[in-house]
Amino acid sequence: MRVTILGNNSALPAFGRHPSAQAVSVYGELLLIDCGEGTQIQMQRYGLRWRSMHHIFISHLHGDHYFGLPGLLNSMSLLGRTAPLHLYAPADLKPILDSILLVADTVLSYPLYFHALPDGVALLADDPSFSVTCFPVEHRIQCHGFLVERKTRGRKLLPEKCNEYGIPAAYYEYLKKGQDYERKDGFLVKNEWVTEDGPSAKRYAYCADTLFTDSFLTVIQGADTIYHECTYLEKDAAKALARHHSTAAQAAQIAKLANAKQLILGHFSSKYKELEPFFDEASAIFPNVFVSIEGTSYEI
Amino acid sequence: MRVTILGNNSALPAFGRHPSAQAVSVYGELLLIDCGEGTQIQMQRYGLRWRSMHHIFISHLHGDHYFGLPGLLNSMSLLGRTAPLHLYAPADLKPILDSILLVADTVLSYPLYFHALPDGVALLADDPSFSVTCFPVEHRIQCHGFLVERKTRGRKLLPEKCNEYGIPAAYYEYLKKGQDYERKDGFLVKNEWVTEDGPSAKRYAYCADTLFTDSFLTVIQGADTIYHECTYLEKDAAKALARHHSTAAQAAQIAKLANAKQLILGHFSSKYKELEPFFDEASAIFPNVFVSIEGTSYEI
Repeated sequence: MRVTILGNNSALPAFGRHPSAQAVSVYGELLLIDCGEGTQIQMQRYGLRWRSMHHIFISHLHGDHYFGLPGLLNSMSLLGRTAPLHLYAPADLKPILDSILLVADTVLSYPLYFHALPDGVALLADDPSFSVTCFPVEHRIQCHGFLVERKTRGRKLLPEKCNEYGIPAAYYEYLKKGQDYERKDGFLVKNEWVTEDGPSAKRYAYCADTLFTDSFLTVIQGADTIYHECTYLEKDAAKALARHHSTAAQAAQIAKLANAKQLILGHFSSKYKELEPFFDEASAIFPNVFVSIEGTSYEI
Repeated sequence: MRVTILGNNSALPAFGRHPSAQAVSVYGELLLIDCGEGTQIQMQRYGLRWRSMHHIFISHLHGDHYFGLPGLLNSMSLLGRTAPLHLYAPADLKPILDSILLVADTVLSYPLYFHALPDGVALLADDPSFSVTCFPVEHRIQCHGFLVERKTRGRKLLPEKCNEYGIPAAYYEYLKKGQDYERKDGFLVKNEWVTEDGPSAKRYAYCADTLFTDSFLTVIQGADTIYHECTYLEKDAAKALARHHSTAAQAAQIAKLANAKQLILGHFSSKYKELEPFFDEASAIFPNVFVSIEGTSYEI
């Protein structure tokens, strides 16, 4: 499970940095979170394939988080996509998208299912391999964070070993759950002889855009990786608060309070050319910090 | 007077080529024609300044011609623009832009004047230095071309020479119009002694997106430079017609019929990686062809 950063900047593109977008890869499925202007071009640039993508999540309706969406939806249609796409976004986005398609006389080549984000915490997508839950964060307008959970697929079978011990395929599901197998001749095949550890469950929390608050801490508690916005440095904390954004120190504080394993920083203001100070400020509070770089994939 | 190409591709971004956008520079004023996704980033990349821009023209409401507009309008506001901006676009764009601003709780920092494009030929902007006229072209949905005219500013004064001959500043306007000056001592100062040729009037015609038609030929007749879409090569002429687009040969035919001085080709389909065949095809019909390259400025 990993996240690829497609845009790490806040509202204004600057210094080659793009507005917010990132793709979480879970067992080969690509979950797109936010879709700032230029996302489709960034996806091309970094080799992310639309065919693996069936779910898009939009945190809120400031343009730097969704102005790339109409173009992406359009392009997939021009390329003849037929697979359904699920879009989870604030309700107000639907009439805007409908109008954009209507005035262009465009009918998408694939079914687009629009899911309006509810006010509170809610399970949005529940797949055998992953789930996505939204939770409210505190911004100027309605805004959500997203918690992506990779589910465990149980223990991983070693097919050669299973054959060796003569275990019938019908019993494989029980092996995945960790059970031993007793042969007809009374011989007990221990689970660990024919399986190994499978991928563990993992939790990734996307927290943007928000001021510093512990209001969603219970939801993201114990996440393996937290992405937290830090539009500003601590010296501009007053500006951060006034604009409902966070500082690098505050992002680190949240990661610490949530007992996360690692923290990815992003959504940098265009007033900062250099990003090292974000690393320094956050690292003083929380040990395992990454300053997100566009095109880079981070293991969760 | 020159045009800088910001995007030369048709609907799908491909091979590093962006969707349609270009900026016409007239006496330091920047006129933006179409605004595909990524235009604000392209403007940054190629050093075009928003401060010189007060007019934006949108040919039609296919996304590859305007999906960069909301981001550009937003960014100028975030940067505190106060100068008025005039937007000329199909009427249906206004409620979409209004909704986008409303759901983001955004009030632009500058006055944005929306001018709905009329059905036929019409003078849109008439400045002392330039004018812009729209004309209908033939596409799947309502679509306009734009004719940009640079006005002559008359003859260019040579201030040192004017001083030398003792001509009062109050008479300069008459010198610009080509008149001689008769001094009180009866000495006749010939106009050509104190002025030189100023910038001549120029006409630039933007023709996109359209199928091959001579319906707007009278409007663009004698243009110095024509930009004409050529989404396809002649071998795909049937596809061009079906999709209301043109071929390189057809674009060249229009330039020839219009007695233009030069032709710029653009709006290439993403099915073509190489663009040389567009040059070859058009040059066989019309002598002075440029295959538009992003970031390049063409003298008109």
